[in-house]
Amino acid sequence: MDAISVIRAKRDKNELTDAQIDWVIDAYTRGEVADEQMSALAMAILLNGMNLREISRWTEAMIRSGERMDFSSLPLPTTDKHSTGGVGDKITLPLAPLVAACGAAVPQLSGRGLGHTGGTLDKLESIPGWRALLSNEEMLAVLRDTGAVICAAGDGLAPADKKLYALRDVTGTVEAIPLIASSIMSKKIAEGTGALVLDVKVGTGAFMKNLADAQELARTMVGLGKAAGVNTVALLTDMSTPLGLTAGNALEVRESVEVLAGGGPADVVELTVALAREMLAAAGVHGKDPADALKDGSAMDHWRRMIAAQGGDPDAELPVARERQVVTADASGVLTSLDAYAVGVAAWRLGAGRARKEDPVQAGAGVEIHAKPGDKVTAGQPLLTLHTDTPERFEYALEALAGGWAVAEEGTPFTPTPIILDRIG
Amino acid sequence: MDAISVIRAKRDKNELTDAQIDWVIDAYTRGEVADEQMSALAMAILLNGMNLREISRWTEAMIRSGERMDFSSLPLPTTDKHSTGGVGDKITLPLAPLVAACGAAVPQLSGRGLGHTGGTLDKLESIPGWRALLSNEEMLAVLRDTGAVICAAGDGLAPADKKLYALRDVTGTVEAIPLIASSIMSKKIAEGTGALVLDVKVGTGAFMKNLADAQELARTMVGLGKAAGVNTVALLTDMSTPLGLTAGNALEVRESVEVLAGGGPADVVELTVALAREMLAAAGVHGKDPADALKDGSAMDHWRRMIAAQGGDPDAELPVARERQVVTADASGVLTSLDAYAVGVAAWRLGAGRARKEDPVQAGAGVEIHAKPGDKVTAGQPLLTLHTDTPERFEYALEALAGGWAVAEEGTPFTPTPIILDRIG
Repeated sequence: MDAISVIRAKRDKNELTDAQIDWVIDAYTRGEVADEQMSALAMAILLNGMNLREISRWTEAMIRSGERMDFSSLPLPTTDKHSTGGVGDKITLPLAPLVAACGAAVPQLSGRGLGHTGGTLDKLESIPGWRALLSNEEMLAVLRDTGAVICAAGDGLAPADKKLYALRDVTGTVEAIPLIASSIMSKKIAEGTGALVLDVKVGTGAFMKNLADAQELARTMVGLGKAAGVNTVALLTDMSTPLGLTAGNALEVRESVEVLAGGGPADVVELTVALAREMLAAAGVHGKDPADALKDGSAMDHWRRMIAAQGGDPDAELPVARERQVVTADASGVLTSLDAYAVGVAAWRLGAGRARKEDPVQAGAGVEIHAKPGDKVTAGQPLLTLHTDTPERFEYALEALAGGWAVAEEGTPFTPTPIILDRIG
Repeated sequence: MDAISVIRAKRDKNELTDAQIDWVIDAYTRGEVADEQMSALAMAILLNGMNLREISRWTEAMIRSGERMDFSSLPLPTTDKHSTGGVGDKITLPLAPLVAACGAAVPQLSGRGLGHTGGTLDKLESIPGWRALLSNEEMLAVLRDTGAVICAAGDGLAPADKKLYALRDVTGTVEAIPLIASSIMSKKIAEGTGALVLDVKVGTGAFMKNLADAQELARTMVGLGKAAGVNTVALLTDMSTPLGLTAGNALEVRESVEVLAGGGPADVVELTVALAREMLAAAGVHGKDPADALKDGSAMDHWRRMIAAQGGDPDAELPVARERQVVTADASGVLTSLDAYAVGVAAWRLGAGRARKEDPVQAGAGVEIHAKPGDKVTAGQPLLTLHTDTPERFEYALEALAGGWAVAEEGTPFTPTPIILDRIG
């Protein structure tokens, strides 16, 4: 077996054999297959595709490259959610304690943001004292005590995926559906969850810009999950405009706490409850309804316990950015669009995100949204407030926002996009 | 400008701009674009192609990565030949002095063999004392004194191509017509020849297995040459069976000397004379006919001077392999095929070629051919003689030859394949 013959096979549109896939993942993890060989193979996969058998084997090989977690000692069934990433997508924060409050255990291994989409761990790290890095034993203890844990994936989980993801990031091979699907699913299957709900985002602010690509990705991942014995469902949800009224780290924590307190923006509440119901159903738990758990304080209670168990102070003041700048509407009428990508890039440039993995993020930076598509606006009224510790970034953020919204004459008919576009299960 | 945006452009089937091409070649040569990025781009080019403008700019950028030679101080017009590589393809050896004898100067920068095709420099190095490495000044002096020089390309010539070629070799991206064409033409244009004849091989023993691919490669290269002011013509020639009656290093030198002495196998003579006529016509030289120069001793005279000028002894005994093994015909009738690839791999395995760039070759190793397609054979008569210094390799070579020829009943009609299949100019 050698790297060139595997690359040639995929280059020439042949199916890779099980033996080829097992060998290439193992040899790449060991460093026998070089980065320049794996990137050529990744490009051939991106352009020539893989079928479900190949993707499934690829996923299994990445799982086998590391350890597998096991939650079978827990008294509750486990269920998890994964989002493909969006702007203002703070859903994991209220969702994990909410599902715990309804009777399932949520072992959430999350990531940091890269590019214009924020990362769950970056958001939670704006809470003073909160720690993302837990040992496997600590993770299990938090999960057992509070019903939910959100933490960083350890180095032992799917190391082949970690190495390949970093390589794809610099070689223009991120956007390959077979590789996206196997990357997500290898981590989630290795994590050991019993059930999984995928939130596959569609729209300008998402990785998948159109519904057909998102459906293909969702079907692939649901197939992989089910084949591995994980009860998997996908919701395809809109990401043409930001979720909620904030994009940033502390800004989104504050909004999440509002949702847990029974308030918060309607779209965030709708999606959180829908995902919670799917997660509970996939785990076979039929107890309290999530909408009730937001009202009766039990979700908030689980949040406070979960944050405290990881060293965070749920009552601490959240960081606030040193400088603000208000962006006003330039015309009166109906706001017909507010582009998720433009807002995501602006928040990123203000300091909420990072350009390179090793960069720090600003806890207080981001974008506050004062009007959403469908709202009436008046010329001169505040549309957005930009937050940053480094005011020299305002101009750079404003550039990203240019052309990022549209106002039509009052009376122009406006049809809101539904949040949930499709369900694949 | 960054590598990922260039990779994405080609991945998404867009044309690369002149600025993108100039930047990526320069940045790769300087090490700013990493090997894993260039290999992903090479795979995208292999699968999505480049148009003539892109290939032309790519070629120019590779030429600009190094020095350009200049033969304008010579009193004679310069003309060169490049073969895409075949089995038993010793043509350069008699051709260069033959063309010199007819009044043009031949500055041949050649390569070493890798894989089943032999390298011109490996063949000439079987002549005791002969040196492939010359400084630019030495090269010009040999050319001025003898009318022809065959030597290794210096490190200063198209360094981007050297780096990219080594990368393609290990990443399954050798077989990309735009990259093959630009690799060959960047070296030949940088070499500074005024005219160029391309011998594009077609068949089992060649890089291009079918005529359509070979025609596309030939048209691309002719276009690149003409655009750069080099009068370029291509002959497409058969490589389904070995050229001549030998494949190996000293074995092919011996056969080349027979051709220079006015004898030699008919196919080698036919192709040598045809290529010489094209080279002279492309250079605008209309003096002695090459067929006459083989008969009157002037080609042999130029050969002896050329070899001596590079330290070689044209009268020295050539090395002979220590061991031989005869392969006999297993049936009587007409030999209908003798596969070039099988013979090439056998010669390579006997020690005539190398598996890795740093391996040595055996001067005496190779295959001697006693019958060619169309010849009558009798069961038990010698068909091939295998030569090697390392007899443990016989079995390995015989494996390569299994199924490598076919004998049909006497009387079976046999239509010989013409040597010259097409001309593009």
